[in-house]
This record gives sequence, structure tokens and C-alpha cells, in this order.
Amino acid sequence: MNDTMNSFDSSTTSPTVAIDLRAVVANWQMLDALAPSAETGAVVKANAYGTGMGTVAKALLEAGCTTFFVAHIEEATALRGVVGDGPTIFLFHGVHQTTITPILENAITPVLNSMYELKLWNAAKPNTPCAIHIDTGMNRLGIQMSELSAFKEASKSTDIMWVFSHLACSDDPESPMNAIQLERFFKALEYWPDAKASLSNTCGIALGNAYHFDLTRPGIGLYGGGQSKTFIPKAVATISAPILNIFEADQSSPVPTVGYGGETPTPAGQKLATIALGYADGSLRSLSNSGFVFLKDVKCPIICRISMDLITIDITNVTQQVSILDRVEFLGQHAHIEDQAIAANTITYELLTGMGPRIQRTYVI
Amino acid sequence: MNDTMNSFDSSTTSPTVAIDLRAVVANWQMLDALAPSAETGAVVKANAYGTGMGTVAKALLEAGCTTFFVAHIEEATALRGVVGDGPTIFLFHGVHQTTITPILENAITPVLNSMYELKLWNAAKPNTPCAIHIDTGMNRLGIQMSELSAFKEASKSTDIMWVFSHLACSDDPESPMNAIQLERFFKALEYWPDAKASLSNTCGIALGNAYHFDLTRPGIGLYGGGQSKTFIPKAVATISAPILNIFEADQSSPVPTVGYGGETPTPAGQKLATIALGYADGSLRSLSNSGFVFLKDVKCPIICRISMDLITIDITNVTQQVSILDRVEFLGQHAHIEDQAIAANTITYELLTGMGPRIQRTYVI
Repeated sequence: MNDTMNSFDSSTTSPTVAIDLRAVVANWQMLDALAPSAETGAVVKANAYGTGMGTVAKALLEAGCTTFFVAHIEEATALRGVVGDGPTIFLFHGVHQTTITPILENAITPVLNSMYELKLWNAAKPNTPCAIHIDTGMNRLGIQMSELSAFKEASKSTDIMWVFSHLACSDDPESPMNAIQLERFFKALEYWPDAKASLSNTCGIALGNAYHFDLTRPGIGLYGGGQSKTFIPKAVATISAPILNIFEADQSSPVPTVGYGGETPTPAGQKLATIALGYADGSLRSLSNSGFVFLKDVKCPIICRISMDLITIDITNVTQQVSILDRVEFLGQHAHIEDQAIAANTITYELLTGMGPRIQRTYVI
Repeated sequence: MNDTMNSFDSSTTSPTVAIDLRAVVANWQMLDALAPSAETGAVVKANAYGTGMGTVAKALLEAGCTTFFVAHIEEATALRGVVGDGPTIFLFHGVHQTTITPILENAITPVLNSMYELKLWNAAKPNTPCAIHIDTGMNRLGIQMSELSAFKEASKSTDIMWVFSHLACSDDPESPMNAIQLERFFKALEYWPDAKASLSNTCGIALGNAYHFDLTRPGIGLYGGGQSKTFIPKAVATISAPILNIFEADQSSPVPTVGYGGETPTPAGQKLATIALGYADGSLRSLSNSGFVFLKDVKCPIICRISMDLITIDITNVTQQVSILDRVEFLGQHAHIEDQAIAANTITYELLTGMGPRIQRTYVI
């Protein structure tokens, strides 16, 4: 992928994404090396953050990862079909009346989030391993600290092999929440001294040894996000799109403007190009007049409201010859995902999970 | 769909969308009635704005629609397979070196956007019908007003059957741009007096008879958006998601907060529920602390940063009994798409095209 700008496929008028599986594996190995005392799993929910669950899981399995995390039962059963019988598959959304059967049939390990789920699980099949999730401050899912005694009592015959919690502010190493949640997690672990413990996602790993415990659960870091002082991931997704039109704005309007709403003035001499990428493809509408692409190594600003299938960019500063069907990079080595996420007023995760179905996928192996 | 809140499928822990095909057809018929002098086509690009191109196109075909519009060649060829040989399929992205063959093989009608595309088309196969797109002020794609003479000269042997343009500000009936573009469109039409003319999308139809010409191109209006004084669409997409957890926040934190970032305080006595819907499913992250859902006819605010798979809502005002796996409505009869779009600081279109692959689809026929 050193030469991504020249490796774009010019035979298609669609947006494309090249997923670099070598980068996914390298990111997993970096995160594994950052937490040497812990086993390193892989969060592959939401179609591996949009990058393709099956293909990514196979690559990670081959690299030595044997523990995976998903959110939905449908993800869990599909993943079991991909990775075979060996690996552990944790199901974050726990157990529900309608998911007990596929959980048991596919040897999925539910992460129990409440007394309600515990009762369902106890009634389902005795002595089947499960994890439990303690809410140490996220207030979203999980057993609350005040419920621990009662939960312990009710789970005497339950095979609780793992105790999880989840950090609310791990992306901010300075947040006091991190230490508060860590302290509470230690308190919870006293109830299950023989269970294995897991607290950290990608940013939690970067917080240091105290947060690693027995098992880590990196997600975004595998896919090129979650950058911190401690962890610089390799770019995984390279999204490109073709130029469909090259022009200067018609200056005969009273005030020439670009795109919907007529809100972006365009002066004479400004060179424009319109590309086949829009919010239907996941280039969020919040990138209107703030996002960018790269064309021939030059950063070109988005100078319009993003429309469903099209974006107009300012290519005035591109000195090389530009042709129809030349491709621009929306995410990749040049168009850094962290910068694009800031421009969209969101986080890297949403740019990845938002990739639309028209984006043609290829894998770099 | 009169009883959507009771017709939710409680057998799944996934988010679901019910697409009401009767509403799509009714919306198309309303738009057709608003422009009685024109033929009414249907824009089905971007998977029919996320609602499912094949199923929607078949329903519209059955209702009498014989003209469809798409953006990408892959959409055009897939649609031809669905609707058969009869209907006209216009391809907005025009003709390119790599798309000539599938265009001709599938009898697609390209909308030529430039002199460049005209040359390709003239060289491809003489006397094959096409449309041309005049840029009357959008500055995105299209032949500019200053190019009209030269384009006319170069297209003497081209079978130009339709002349299109596109309004930049039709969602604002007060915008002076509408009249400016209309006037320019008339000027352009003087060059091709025998061609049929098409200017208006959904909002353009609502601007009145002067904007209708021979053929209209409604998109968003078919799918429940594009509301105006003249046009009130029926809701098409009903998105629901199950409740996975019901709780009050743990008040033992120094400052109890909900979700990532720890930025949303939650007082004692506030009743919360966490639902299986997240930005990976298209509930945009910009709805954090501003969006809403309906639960048992009560509006419940989103009171956290949206996470990838989960959202926490405030259900304090729901007086009826609430149970795990009860479903909330994120879009539909109660959770109106225009209101949700405003809460997300975007437009209805992005809520529809953003629906993620985990959302299970059903069709109401």
C-alpha cells in the first residue's frame, strides 16, 4: 500500500475501498505487544467496523487471535461459521428469550448484563460458561455495583468464567473516570476471584498495564483509528472515488455558487471537480464545506453541501494534469481518518461503519 | 400500518425497518396528481434511498410508473433485470469509457453531462437516444449555458430526446434561485425545441405548474420526506429497536453520567432504557443528546452520545409497564422523519440512505 495513489482501479465509476488486511494484523500485533500480560482478542461487531467481518476474522485467526467479540446474535452465528469450533465468541448483547437456542447451538459465550439475563441463562442449560458485565460507570448495560451481592448469590450455580467492564472515557487519558472505574472494577472482581477479567478496549490498552488484566478487547485500533500517544495504528481502509466532471463554475449567475442551497460562492478561476461519492456512500453530510480529499498528493477541500451521490471539490492547487475518471482519496494514507473525522465533527468509527453498499470492496493481503 | 406500535416483531433482538410499499405508491400518486401535465418518473438510486431498489421499483411499475432514474451503472443494470425491457432507465452519471458497453447492452439512457461525454456517446453507437443535462446554476454536473451553442453544433447527429436540469434550492420556495434557474432552463430548451424537458425533483413539483414540463423526477417524496406546504408525504420507513436493559443510573458515582464521555448527568429517579440501535445502524452520531424515540406513544429523549450498537433513552415519562424486548420507534408514524432529521442537523435523505446492514427489512404490501 505504499503506492495507493497509483494503485486505484480506474476501470470502475464506483467508489471503492481497499481493506489492507496486513495492516489489520499489524495493528492487532501492536496492541498485543502493548499488553504483554493479557490475551488480545478482537472486536469484529458491525461487520468488523464496516471492513468485512468474515475476511477480517479469518486474517486475525491466522495471525493467532482466538477470541472474538460481537454485539448481535446474527453476528455471532455468522462468525462461528467463519472461524470454526475453536475460537471463543463473546456476545455483548447477552442472552434473551429469543437468542438462547442459537447461543447454545453455536457455543457462543454470552456476556450477561443483568439479573434478568442471569435468570434466563440459569434456566437455559446448567454449567455452561458465560461472562458477566459490570457497569462501573458507563450506565448503559451491565450489573450495577449495588447489585453485586445479590447477583453473586443468584449466580452460585452459574459458570462465570469472565468478568468484564467497559471504560466510558478511555479516549481521554486525563479523565478522572478512568481511575474511578478501575477502582470499582477491582471491587467487583473480589466477588469472583477465580474469573478472568477484561476491561480495556483500544484506548484502555493505551492507558497502561493496570488496565490490561487477563484479556483485552481492541476494536477501532485494528481498523486504523484509536490513535493515541502510545498507539499509532496503520491505515486500513483506503476509500477512493472517480472524478466525473472537471470545470470552472458558470460565472454568468448573479452570484455563482456550488451545489445545493447555493451557499458556497465560487470565484472565477477556481477549478472544480465533481466526484462520484456522496452521503449514501458514507461520506457524512456533516463534511459539507469542511471535509477534504487528496488528488495527486494535493489536499482538495470539499466546497459544497455533500449530496447523495456527488461531491464537488476545489482542485485549483493541483498542478498536475487532471483527467475524467482520475480517482481521489477520501480516506487512506493521505486523507487521514482522524482528520476526516474531526472535519465531520464525529469519531473515526462512524466513518468506517458508515461505508455504504455501493462502495466496491477489495482486500489487500 | 395504522397500528405500527403493536405490529413490531418481538422475536428479534435486531433493529428492523418495515417499508410500507402502499405508502410509496400513494406518495408517487400524490406527486403525479400535483403535476398532471407531466409524466411522473421515480428516482430509485442509492437502493431507492435505502428502502430497497428492486422491491420498490416493482411496486411502482405495477402502479403505472414506467420511467426510473439511477446514478450508477451498477444500479442501472440491476434495475433493468428487475423491471424488464419496457421502462426507460435514465443514468444520471452519464457515459464513461468503462460504462458504454453495459449502457448499450441494457438499453440504458445516459444523461450526458459534458462535451466529453457527448464525444464518447457519439462514437459509441449512432442514433441511440440520450438525455442531456444543462447546468442552470447548480454547478455540479452538466453542460454550462456558455457551452450551449458549441454543444448544439457537436450534437447534430445525436439523438437528444430529453433535456434535463436540476434545481439547487427547490426546498426553499422563496429562493430567487428557482426563478433564475427556470429562466435559464427555458433559454436552454430553445436549442432543442423538439426534446422533452425535465426539471423538477419532489420539491420542484411543489413549486407549481411552471416547473413541471414533460417529466418529473421525484425521489425523497416517494420515501416519506420532502414535506412542503403543497405535499405531505405518507411515512414509508418504520425503524424500531428492542430494549435490552431498563435501569436507574448507579448513583454511587461522584457525578453519575450516561454513556461515553461521561458528559450527560443523570439524576436519581430518572428511568433509563438502553436499546439495540447505534450509529452502525444509521442512527447518526449527531443525534447524541438531541434525537428521540417513541415508546408506547411517549416521546423519549436520547440522553447520551450515540454508540456503535446502543443508545440510552430517558423513559421516565412512560407510565405503562415497560419490559425487556419491548420495541421503540426511531422513525415512523410517531417519530417523524422530518423532526429526527432536524435533531440530527441533517436532512431526511441521510437518515434513509444511512440505514445499516444489520437492520432487518420487511415490506408492507
